[in-house]
Amino acid sequence: MPAFERHVFVCCNTRPEGALRPSCTRNGTSALHAELKQRVNAAGLGDRVRINKSGCLDQCEHGPMVVVYPDSVWYGNVQPEDAAEIVAEHLAAGRPVERLRVAAECLNTPSCAHRPAVYTKPSDALS
Amino acid sequence: MPAFERHVFVCCNTRPEGALRPSCTRNGTSALHAELKQRVNAAGLGDRVRINKSGCLDQCEHGPMVVVYPDSVWYGNVQPEDAAEIVAEHLAAGRPVERLRVAAECLNTPSCAHRPAVYTKPSDALS
Repeated sequence: MPAFERHVFVCCNTRPEGALRPSCTRNGTSALHAELKQRVNAAGLGDRVRINKSGCLDQCEHGPMVVVYPDSVWYGNVQPEDAAEIVAEHLAAGRPVERLRVAAECLNTPSCAHRPAVYTKPSDALS
Repeated sequence: MPAFERHVFVCCNTRPEGALRPSCTRNGTSALHAELKQRVNAAGLGDRVRINKSGCLDQCEHGPMVVVYPDSVWYGNVQPEDAAEIVAEHLAAGRPVERLRVAAECLNTPSCAHRPAVYTKPSDALS
């Protein structure tokens, strides 16, 4: 088998209470991750697509975050109930789910409409 | 800024004691991750390349594992002292470090010369 056809990273990061940036999960467990994994296996894609846990993807204000490689498709505010559409449309049929994509002007930027420009607390340093 | 030029996932998974498959880290912390991150920042690549923690990448017998996207380059048995070469050669100059690549016949396969064909303990199910 070659490299995975698609490799999906689901942020499971949880920041300490009081952190300035939000967390993608409350306690490191992600119902979204579990739902994606179950549905990928049910669709018979388990050998070709891997659903992976990841640490902070640094798009915290748009979370819960998911990134799909090698497509480099970034999804934001993804809920467990979105898993069926991601699996059927993107991972099985190759059509990214446009309604879930993070806006280009919000991606990998130090500030945007949702992300304040300055974080000063060392505890909010990127992990 | 667009999607990261390169997104590097470093497995930080630790399996329970007695697990059949090996772990990429002993206690979830990775000196390799820290070294890559420090060197990427020192090389001025911090805005374009993200060094990310990940959960199990399912290549446990070849770990510590690293995968670089969107290139889909998989490195195995990566040590902290390999970080300088990965950053200078691959992440800065775009030339993957061939000596660290996982052999094609070992990648994403249920068994290979390093991976026994059958795992029976439920605790070794892929996470």
